[in-house]
Amino acid sequence: MAHALRLSRRGLGNVWPNPAVGCVLVREGRVVGRGWTQPGGRPHAERVALDQAGPLARGATAYVTLEPCAHHGRTPPCAEALVSAGVARVVSALTDPDPRVAGRGHAMLRAAGTAVTERMGEAQARAVQAGFLARVTRGRPFVTLKLASSFDGRIATASGESQWITGPAARRHVHALRLIHDAIMVGGGTARADRPSLNVRGFGPVRQPARVIVTTQPLPDLPGEGGDFGPLWQVSGDLDAIMADLARRGVTRLFCEGGGALAAGLLRAGLVDQLVGYTAGLVLGQEGRAAIGPLALTTLADAPRFRLVETRRMGGDLFHRWLAG
Amino acid sequence: MAHALRLSRRGLGNVWPNPAVGCVLVREGRVVGRGWTQPGGRPHAERVALDQAGPLARGATAYVTLEPCAHHGRTPPCAEALVSAGVARVVSALTDPDPRVAGRGHAMLRAAGTAVTERMGEAQARAVQAGFLARVTRGRPFVTLKLASSFDGRIATASGESQWITGPAARRHVHALRLIHDAIMVGGGTARADRPSLNVRGFGPVRQPARVIVTTQPLPDLPGEGGDFGPLWQVSGDLDAIMADLARRGVTRLFCEGGGALAAGLLRAGLVDQLVGYTAGLVLGQEGRAAIGPLALTTLADAPRFRLVETRRMGGDLFHRWLAG
Repeated sequence: MAHALRLSRRGLGNVWPNPAVGCVLVREGRVVGRGWTQPGGRPHAERVALDQAGPLARGATAYVTLEPCAHHGRTPPCAEALVSAGVARVVSALTDPDPRVAGRGHAMLRAAGTAVTERMGEAQARAVQAGFLARVTRGRPFVTLKLASSFDGRIATASGESQWITGPAARRHVHALRLIHDAIMVGGGTARADRPSLNVRGFGPVRQPARVIVTTQPLPDLPGEGGDFGPLWQVSGDLDAIMADLARRGVTRLFCEGGGALAAGLLRAGLVDQLVGYTAGLVLGQEGRAAIGPLALTTLADAPRFRLVETRRMGGDLFHRWLAG
Repeated sequence: MAHALRLSRRGLGNVWPNPAVGCVLVREGRVVGRGWTQPGGRPHAERVALDQAGPLARGATAYVTLEPCAHHGRTPPCAEALVSAGVARVVSALTDPDPRVAGRGHAMLRAAGTAVTERMGEAQARAVQAGFLARVTRGRPFVTLKLASSFDGRIATASGESQWITGPAARRHVHALRLIHDAIMVGGGTARADRPSLNVRGFGPVRQPARVIVTTQPLPDLPGEGGDFGPLWQVSGDLDAIMADLARRGVTRLFCEGGGALAAGLLRAGLVDQLVGYTAGLVLGQEGRAAIGPLALTTLADAPRFRLVETRRMGGDLFHRWLAG
């Protein structure tokens, strides 16, 4: 299952609105097929692994990071495909919350005489599929807020100079994070001031994330969709409504890169699921531009709280990741 | 030498204005004596180790983290004591920059026929003795600036609420850091607003660090020296002059705990040798109190820079340590 979970991550940012699933087929202690959800969401991980295994799938155990689908879409359901291939046992990490599946995949397998073991590696699978789960169960994407700041939490000097506070390793890592998100969001002020490219660079040809600009004002002159740039969407108004709209458009993982007003708005609305920080070893002082706008807190107890899940050195900078709650 | 360096750390904060030295005597592959500079600076590490070894010191190798002293003070010089005890070889990490020693310890040993190997573990010894070296060679203490802040670099809410941003593990660690510093410095505003105790708690009876308040205004009502509290010194004026004054008073390691104006002053004057940060997983927003006051930078290139040397989780908080340059 650990192997299947690693494979599943390859689909992140690449398969939305579908879940990023991994599948490993094991027969007599040997891996006979491996698959992960392909770009755009098809074929599914199980289909890829079954095709790779061919006749070796007969009698094998399938480890899948999400319940196999049970509904006829563009292709026959994976539960049916696993049965037809003669897979003897299916070990799955998570029940699919999609109402078209919701246990029916597991039931279809059991009805056909396939042994099913559920919830192996469920916590890890939930972490990988946080975006898909948020969209299906909460009607909004999983939201990551990124902050690259000085030691004292500043994102630019008083005059607005911000290139570069963090070093090349951290900046490259930001592109790796954009790669595993479906859409990148910035506020109108940031879009106008920085004209950010909001694309993934340095990873070869990839599915570029959608660019989401939150503003009521006219957009600055940004490149159109195609080639190195994903779709460009202008949104405005209530943040909860914006999130619902993005989920309807299929976005499961949203990466917000500022500025301070938008970041504060998301935090006030309780919409931030994950914080990622890059802290540089320089100090900009009180006049520097604040990373997060006003939160209008009255007491410390009201402050949005996050728990540390990861920290490491990244070039000369410090990387840290926190989850809500 | 690694063992001697570990022993030497036990003297930090406890032996100023003397250096914190460690000494290990090894004879025929066995440790026959261990010593570190005792509270107040006497006896020296070598004397303690020699007394422990007794006749076993004859023919032994002494590992010392600083050149043995050569001047007659309250006690005979350690170089002489090592010779008298019949130590065959001395391995030292660092030449003592004190003009009363400055190579004369090594010379005295060689003149008496003792083999001397210098500069083993020099870089680590420099790190441990950064305070002593700063005082002797630069005429000022080694300065550590501490910052306990929210994810966005705030040390209190707009209304001044700051207890507690960081958790108990981080707060206990602050006391462990106070313990290995000679003096603790805060600005007058912090002293008046928070009435900080500026002492070491939770480590049993210890030599309490001096309390240094930087202000021209009358001091708030703080406990006098004695028991759980070190000496209380009021200082004001030019920060370079204050540092020179503290060095004259014997301070080798100074721990500055804010507030923002003093921290900014130290950074502007280039007086911060080490930054330690405790970052909590909560966000306070732009109205929160800034950790560092105004720096009056014109460009990013002028920002004081530090390099990351350590990072780890501390309870629910993130600890990170940076050195200047």
